[in-house]
Amino acid sequence: MKRKIYLSNTDIEEAVASYIERLEEEMPPVAVEEVDVRSAAGRVTASPVFARISAPNHNAAAMDGIMVLAEKTYSASEVKPVTLEKGKDFQFINTGHPLVEPYDSVIMIEDIVPEDEDHVTIRMAAAPWQHVRPIGEDIVAGEMVLPENHRIRPMDIGAVLNSGVSSVKVYEKIRVGIMPTGNEITDEYETLPPGKSFDTNSWTFCAMIQEWGGIPDRIPPVPDDEEALRNAMRGLLSRNHIVVINAGSSAGGKDFTAPLVEENGELFLHGIAIKPGKPTILGIVDGKPLIGVPGYPGSAFLAFEEIVGPVFRLFQKTDIPKLPHAEATVSRRVVSSLKYREYLRVKLGKVGEKLIATPLPRGAGSTMSLVKADGLMIIPKNSEGMEAGETARVELVKDLETIESTLVSIGSHDLIMDYIGNLMEKKGAFEKGKKFHLSSAHVGSMGGLLALSRGEAHLAPIHLLDEETGEYNTSYLERYLPGRNIRLIKGVRRQQGFMTAKGNPKGLHSVKDLTGEGLRFVNRQRGSGTRLLTDYLLKKEGIDPAAVYGYEREMTTHMSVAAAVKSGTADVGVGVYSAAAAMELDFIPIGYEEYDFAIPEEYMDLPAIRIFMEVLKSREFKEVLKELGGYECE
Amino acid sequence: MKRKIYLSNTDIEEAVASYIERLEEEMPPVAVEEVDVRSAAGRVTASPVFARISAPNHNAAAMDGIMVLAEKTYSASEVKPVTLEKGKDFQFINTGHPLVEPYDSVIMIEDIVPEDEDHVTIRMAAAPWQHVRPIGEDIVAGEMVLPENHRIRPMDIGAVLNSGVSSVKVYEKIRVGIMPTGNEITDEYETLPPGKSFDTNSWTFCAMIQEWGGIPDRIPPVPDDEEALRNAMRGLLSRNHIVVINAGSSAGGKDFTAPLVEENGELFLHGIAIKPGKPTILGIVDGKPLIGVPGYPGSAFLAFEEIVGPVFRLFQKTDIPKLPHAEATVSRRVVSSLKYREYLRVKLGKVGEKLIATPLPRGAGSTMSLVKADGLMIIPKNSEGMEAGETARVELVKDLETIESTLVSIGSHDLIMDYIGNLMEKKGAFEKGKKFHLSSAHVGSMGGLLALSRGEAHLAPIHLLDEETGEYNTSYLERYLPGRNIRLIKGVRRQQGFMTAKGNPKGLHSVKDLTGEGLRFVNRQRGSGTRLLTDYLLKKEGIDPAAVYGYEREMTTHMSVAAAVKSGTADVGVGVYSAAAAMELDFIPIGYEEYDFAIPEEYMDLPAIRIFMEVLKSREFKEVLKELGGYECE
Repeated sequence: MKRKIYLSNTDIEEAVASYIERLEEEMPPVAVEEVDVRSAAGRVTASPVFARISAPNHNAAAMDGIMVLAEKTYSASEVKPVTLEKGKDFQFINTGHPLVEPYDSVIMIEDIVPEDEDHVTIRMAAAPWQHVRPIGEDIVAGEMVLPENHRIRPMDIGAVLNSGVSSVKVYEKIRVGIMPTGNEITDEYETLPPGKSFDTNSWTFCAMIQEWGGIPDRIPPVPDDEEALRNAMRGLLSRNHIVVINAGSSAGGKDFTAPLVEENGELFLHGIAIKPGKPTILGIVDGKPLIGVPGYPGSAFLAFEEIVGPVFRLFQKTDIPKLPHAEATVSRRVVSSLKYREYLRVKLGKVGEKLIATPLPRGAGSTMSLVKADGLMIIPKNSEGMEAGETARVELVKDLETIESTLVSIGSHDLIMDYIGNLMEKKGAFEKGKKFHLSSAHVGSMGGLLALSRGEAHLAPIHLLDEETGEYNTSYLERYLPGRNIRLIKGVRRQQGFMTAKGNPKGLHSVKDLTGEGLRFVNRQRGSGTRLLTDYLLKKEGIDPAAVYGYEREMTTHMSVAAAVKSGTADVGVGVYSAAAAMELDFIPIGYEEYDFAIPEEYMDLPAIRIFMEVLKSREFKEVLKELGGYECE
Repeated sequence: MKRKIYLSNTDIEEAVASYIERLEEEMPPVAVEEVDVRSAAGRVTASPVFARISAPNHNAAAMDGIMVLAEKTYSASEVKPVTLEKGKDFQFINTGHPLVEPYDSVIMIEDIVPEDEDHVTIRMAAAPWQHVRPIGEDIVAGEMVLPENHRIRPMDIGAVLNSGVSSVKVYEKIRVGIMPTGNEITDEYETLPPGKSFDTNSWTFCAMIQEWGGIPDRIPPVPDDEEALRNAMRGLLSRNHIVVINAGSSAGGKDFTAPLVEENGELFLHGIAIKPGKPTILGIVDGKPLIGVPGYPGSAFLAFEEIVGPVFRLFQKTDIPKLPHAEATVSRRVVSSLKYREYLRVKLGKVGEKLIATPLPRGAGSTMSLVKADGLMIIPKNSEGMEAGETARVELVKDLETIESTLVSIGSHDLIMDYIGNLMEKKGAFEKGKKFHLSSAHVGSMGGLLALSRGEAHLAPIHLLDEETGEYNTSYLERYLPGRNIRLIKGVRRQQGFMTAKGNPKGLHSVKDLTGEGLRFVNRQRGSGTRLLTDYLLKKEGIDPAAVYGYEREMTTHMSVAAAVKSGTADVGVGVYSAAAAMELDFIPIGYEEYDFAIPEEYMDLPAIRIFMEVLKSREFKEVLKELGGYECE
């Protein structure tokens, strides 16, 4: 097995700048085409656009009124009105219409007194050229309307047409070849054979290229075969400006992109100091950029945005559009490596006056965390991380306006949170043209209370059993948020129980059975209400957690516990009925618990909270609970 | 003549919110269609997307290495290594590949020592499920991947495919009918008959609708004829969700939109308290929104963005994309009416640390000022305006990153500024992935010096004649920017002269001829270098400016003076050779002057200034000067 190590750990700015400099030396010119400006939005001008005619092309009335010869009005005043005769001294004229000889001035309709059909009186002299838009006021023939290398915007189209020009020279659209690779990758989305994974990155890339104004040229996944890879690469290079190979770029056994580039052209750089995205490869083959992007979705997205993006812009000759960015306050301490610039996925929320960034779990392998993220927080290289309260630059993958109208929920996980979010979207309730959204992060009940105390969230869903009183939630608010005015909004009562495979093959009936020979348990993470419940049940029965095989295997959601049981890697876990039902598992009830919402008093008046409460009380929500099963509500 | 007045002056938020509320009562439902998610970027989900399968769908290696049964490794330690046998105790595995029974753990390749073909040694125990991505780690089957009413982004496509779903239910694209009107409006862009104007707004609207993700349905301009207008409106209403009528909405004589709406449906509102855009009409016909947008391009763009936009979003069920916004410092006092929310076109520049907004001339009739503007500064209703130094919200029509890499030039006008800007774009010099641009505002030389003193500009082009010394520029820097360290960069020597019609029909030869009988002069604005020169020439000859007919008629650029002469509304004006040549006028030289660049020392090191200087010295620039004619450079 031939194993390579990373060739470099180059700073991203340096890597991109020197790569672009190198590419400029031999990149083939981008072709120019002439297109109708009416369908040229988003295209980039290949030469300046000069006005063919002036706009207006005649001296035009700027107001509705009459056109006059100014010198004939000079004697008019409040005390000595002048009467003008139609056809001889004046003509009516509407805004935009041309002045005709010999008239050189316009008097507004409001300033004339009609006498009869043919006469009007004025009480003020008119200056020459008053209320007249002279020829060329807007655009003068010969003037440069648009410069070269300018991305055409909607308003540019109006101005170009106004200057008498209807076709413009633009660069051809930039074509990017996308080459997914790997024996285990399939793009048959109907069935997933065992051991295979869907090709997901390449379609995300295609959509990004289209957003940039380019044309994607994706081919089906290429197997890990030297000949097949070489042919596929050659084909894509022959018909595209840029080629991106996905996966095969890290230091593993099957990493063929670097040798492939070396064999056919120049391996410019292998390894960039960003995280995720480190093993990115920058190559040049036939004078064209060939970029190897890592396979994990998180790495792939970032490398595509931050490295393929600038190369695309080099060809496109313009620097838009990029991800917009904002400054956000980090809600908790984040440790990062000195060696890399890290792009941390974060949830963002406008809580009070601040834009708060809450880091999501790391891990480049997830497609959902990219969907759930609102932005990528940048932790610079040579930084050990960020302290809570520090501000950092965040590249936004969601619209800032959307983020600002999003209710931030951090706390315990329940399937109903997704449904509440969906109903909030659906209710659509435009309040002064705004819609409201729910962003829901799952860190367990205790994590939710901590988030409230740090001002990271508008609300925290919690289900915390007080072992002493047997009551839920109230005592925790007093204990963990003392002195804070927190409202506890009643949510749902939900059924917890043991989830087992269909037919309960291990014959599990009570907590005592958890220590049974050969029985594998899967647990929830510390700080979650379900874990507290499980710990409590064991304690009540006097069972040592160490005696339960798998007690240290922690999952962060009901669904992931259910998935572990479903897949057979565990025999039993604790969770809610709806999760067991969704995964078609057996369910042995333990009892009902209170799943409530803690909301600081100061947020109770927010329009988004009002809509949240409306959804909680709605008929649609009660129907969802009935369908999911295992819930009761007041 | 039937003349109407504005029916209302309603606040824009109130107008839009109540209109939308009214529309919701009877708007027809938006149809739903099923599309392939791979081509669904930008579409809006009509129902939630639930995962069909889990991702990963098998327990997958998270690292390259070997898979083992954890309990067989428990005794391994630094002092007591354990040797494992291939096929019996372990198998090699690559990242992403499935674990097979009975293995439950992965050891990284870095942590094993190969002994021979079939044996490896480990020095550390493996925990069960270490370096394993369990089934459903990313997505659990049944989980909600995307909510309803969600605009699909590139990364959403990857996640949806990953969940085993390849087609999604989305709303149909929103169709907007666009109806330009007016006898004087033509869309034959090859020729412009006298008195006609090009239809420019409707194509800008079409591009905006496409940016929003909708489908524009534009028809050719409809003449001002009741029957034709009614038929056109009916046709558009029958096949679109929204219909926009352009022009015909103000209070002039030909304003037919309001009567048309009243006759066929409900005139919900006529008149909104924004400037420009005031006469906008909100109507409902056949349960569909029919919006009358004013004809001036400035008003049209704003009403389309601020009023048609929210209505479009109502149908689209999502609130993106809007114009992005930023806070900017106003560079000078702006007076505004209490009665309206005003949207003032501004140039923006990052000068020092501040984003500075410099108001452009008002006037809704210009298409170029929308092209030149970087943003629309919002002056709230009930505000009398802004003081210099105050900050205001600006809606951006240019990318903030582009604005931040733009060199702001404010001062005297010369055609070469457009060419320098173009060469800066063309040079393309990506510095660390950034391009540089030139934004050039024409306010005259003195205005440029004032802009420098207020910190609004990076540089000021000036040509200021000192009447006492006959020298250019230097003394003005000392007088108007005392104590500031300003560098004077030599620009070009340029020829000024009288511009007359071809053949010099009035036989003009010297300054003395300007007072000639029947001769009409057109002047430059006070504060411009050319005006100073003209004033100086008159003074030298002892001529009273009042004796020159038209001396008070002021234009702000050389080209607009040339255009006035060309159109015959003036017989003579003062300007540069290149402007006369561009408009094919005769030119009687007065002499050469120095057109230089004043640049504060602190900006000399900016990369954009460096590129500006490079362009000044470039061969390409010298070629431009030669082609334009009338210039000399060092």
